Amino acid sequence: MPDLKRELLFDFYELAQACGFLAEGIDETVAWFDMFYRPARELGGFCVMAGVRQVADYLSDLHFDEEDLDFLRQKGMDERFLDYLKHFRFTCDLWAVEEGTPIFANEPVVKVRGPVIQAQMLETIILQSVNHQSLIATKANRIVRAAQGRSVIESGSRRAHGIAAATYGARSAYIGGAAATTNVLAAKTYGIPLFCSMNQTWTQMFDSEFEAFAAFARRHPDDLVVQLDTYDTLESGLPAALRVFDEVLSPMGKRPRGVRIDSGDLAYLSKKLRRTLNEAGYPDCDIYASNSLDEYIIRDMLQNGARIDHFMVGARLITASSHPVMGGVYKLSAVEKDGAIVPKIQISDNVAKITTPYPKLLWRLFDKETGKAIADVITMEDEDLSNAESYELFDPDYTWKRKTVTDFVARQLLTPVFLNGRQVYRFPSEDKIRAYCAGQVESLWEEVLRIEYPHNYYVDLSERLWQAKQTLIDSYFNRR
Amino acid sequence: MPDLKRELLFDFYELAQACGFLAEGIDETVAWFDMFYRPARELGGFCVMAGVRQVADYLSDLHFDEEDLDFLRQKGMDERFLDYLKHFRFTCDLWAVEEGTPIFANEPVVKVRGPVIQAQMLETIILQSVNHQSLIATKANRIVRAAQGRSVIESGSRRAHGIAAATYGARSAYIGGAAATTNVLAAKTYGIPLFCSMNQTWTQMFDSEFEAFAAFARRHPDDLVVQLDTYDTLESGLPAALRVFDEVLSPMGKRPRGVRIDSGDLAYLSKKLRRTLNEAGYPDCDIYASNSLDEYIIRDMLQNGARIDHFMVGARLITASSHPVMGGVYKLSAVEKDGAIVPKIQISDNVAKITTPYPKLLWRLFDKETGKAIADVITMEDEDLSNAESYELFDPDYTWKRKTVTDFVARQLLTPVFLNGRQVYRFPSEDKIRAYCAGQVESLWEEVLRIEYPHNYYVDLSERLWQAKQTLIDSYFNRR
Repeated sequence: MPDLKRELLFDFYELAQACGFLAEGIDETVAWFDMFYRPARELGGFCVMAGVRQVADYLSDLHFDEEDLDFLRQKGMDERFLDYLKHFRFTCDLWAVEEGTPIFANEPVVKVRGPVIQAQMLETIILQSVNHQSLIATKANRIVRAAQGRSVIESGSRRAHGIAAATYGARSAYIGGAAATTNVLAAKTYGIPLFCSMNQTWTQMFDSEFEAFAAFARRHPDDLVVQLDTYDTLESGLPAALRVFDEVLSPMGKRPRGVRIDSGDLAYLSKKLRRTLNEAGYPDCDIYASNSLDEYIIRDMLQNGARIDHFMVGARLITASSHPVMGGVYKLSAVEKDGAIVPKIQISDNVAKITTPYPKLLWRLFDKETGKAIADVITMEDEDLSNAESYELFDPDYTWKRKTVTDFVARQLLTPVFLNGRQVYRFPSEDKIRAYCAGQVESLWEEVLRIEYPHNYYVDLSERLWQAKQTLIDSYFNRR
Repeated sequence: MPDLKRELLFDFYELAQACGFLAEGIDETVAWFDMFYRPARELGGFCVMAGVRQVADYLSDLHFDEEDLDFLRQKGMDERFLDYLKHFRFTCDLWAVEEGTPIFANEPVVKVRGPVIQAQMLETIILQSVNHQSLIATKANRIVRAAQGRSVIESGSRRAHGIAAATYGARSAYIGGAAATTNVLAAKTYGIPLFCSMNQTWTQMFDSEFEAFAAFARRHPDDLVVQLDTYDTLESGLPAALRVFDEVLSPMGKRPRGVRIDSGDLAYLSKKLRRTLNEAGYPDCDIYASNSLDEYIIRDMLQNGARIDHFMVGARLITASSHPVMGGVYKLSAVEKDGAIVPKIQISDNVAKITTPYPKLLWRLFDKETGKAIADVITMEDEDLSNAESYELFDPDYTWKRKTVTDFVARQLLTPVFLNGRQVYRFPSEDKIRAYCAGQVESLWEEVLRIEYPHNYYVDLSERLWQAKQTLIDSYFNRR
């Protein structure tokens, strides 16, 4: 990946507080944090985890150079803290749900344990990477599902929010199921298949569309995709393309890969194109379409009977434009005092912002027979569901809703990435993560996969954790 | 700025076409390109230009290393082209509207002239930077206008689409009028004022809010901003803060800078807080508020009589969430043949996608008396409005709408940034761009500044340019 110099990727209060914890002598207190995201209708029934690799890359090399320290000195930081940063060594434990896994609102997807001075400094680093990449992987997966087996090509670099958005975004889109990208840097860095077509500039540089397409065909006989809409798709672009297929490609013994449209009504044009291509003897010539596509338009165009084989999706994928924010937060759940856990809770004025205390595990229960995911359960660290024969699910808000499940396999999802500051996890290649993601999404019931108004997947607290949380809330309100 | 390794920031077809132009022997043909954006209601009446500095940084250092060339070789690029890239030297001219200037849909805001092999390769580089930064500068300016003189603090790093989005985004937000940022890297890189507060973690690390606030107050006596909503803003946070103001700050002879709320109904809470703070003798203690704010909520809360002095705006600013895409495009407008201009047009199946041919100038007419901007006029390169006494404005779509203006000053907005590949423009510091932006926005009529349904500012073509465009469209349709 491009060499991003990220030493000062912090919100200032994180450093101010770190400096303060050191001065107060509580810097070494061991603290536990959870990252989880808050629900949003537009994200759909679940999200796809991504961005952990970039968190790991960053933490493996976290250091502060003299220029950084000078800047912080100007901002009033203590020399003692600057000295701490100068000799900074990362010593936290970090667990995360593996990239490509479906995740649900309010469950811990990253967990950190370490000296509070460090653990709280990681807030922006973790949130930025996981919020961004999970958002794009989620959006890509929605678009891929809407395309019903047709391929989705990520082509949003020019509308991305900067180079990291373009490149990490292309990575995330690939994890979420995109088949290829047009972004050369992302293709090189992550081994993503690179898609090549042409644009109108090529056509305009020649005296006619025929000459332009013919020149491109001679250069790309094996993977020719011709853009038809520089002047008029049906009246001028298509006839020129067919002539080139007949007069340039055929004599070379080659077949065209496809034609591409980027304007007009894509559903209508695709049906016209399909008919003409078939009649002309090119039923194997695919149709590529682009122009502000997303999962909603693709779903509706396919319902219109559109004959599009490949969707090039740009702006609305790379920015997740229908909801460009994944609302992940990073919250203290406990500290350790004399070796014991002291739970921490944030009450807040919004009920939705009350946090769940204690270090946790995250379990997913799969039906033994169908392999389908039944529910997720968040437990205390010392609860083990891996050998449970039956389990009573229990809704944390509507506690009278209970259901006992049996014949399941329970898989714990928080996986160690760093232990005592040392990376212990090896990230799979992006194509492996992509395949894993497809399999995991497959394990969700169709109702959860619905693009709009999906079924609410169960994410429950264990009864012990629920009780402990209630006790803490009650004790807070009784104390007042 | 962080050292972004951006050598391969291209969509693949740009390189494929460059390679093709070389093979076809037309690589040195001089081509003209315009960048302009397409209108979108959610962007408002105008946008704020930004991102040119990063385009210049990139172009000043555009080169290809061996690893890049190896990758392109694997992708089937000719050796001759790889050799061209190996010895790449940027030789284009590039003009741009200066950062901080209000810009309008469909007018050329970047113009490039150079060998087509190079000029068309810049498409993604230019669009990504200008689309992203102008989008955020525009959103920031909308939010700043809604805040009616109260300050706006950019705090969206954790929801930004990666580090470039966070850091260039903070820069753009500052240009658009934000007063400060919480992003340490952006503050260091661009000299943006850095805002420090605390978060709930600090509070939770102490046995009580009083102890937490007291410790923070002793460390930040000159700029204390206390976050009130870890447990209960009015019942617990505020009383603890007041006790710290009285018992810790006052004895030091210091006054609190502010209190901050991040949950609950901010308008309601702010009124309650203001009353209590005033009664307690702290009328000078400001109120800071955050929680999914944007221009619409700020406008409505101020209408509710909210007593908020500073708005911390995160996710919805840094992602421009109401419309996270600036639809800028980069289109060929002409080539040179034997020293003469050959205009180029794209007709397309959507009328809105028809381009305006010919190299152009962009003029803004200011009323001599009021200093207000009257209209923009796009002309041919050889039209000079700088000494015109009167000018007949003329709507390019509704050509019967005409209006003669007099007593104006005409300023040409496209400024040389590169000439023959050499940078000739010196970028002002970000605080100067910010001040310039505020002045230029001031030159627009209030009706154009309206947050929703603004007045349509006039962007006209000169009669000569309009005629030339019509002739080209007609000749295309007659030829068929």
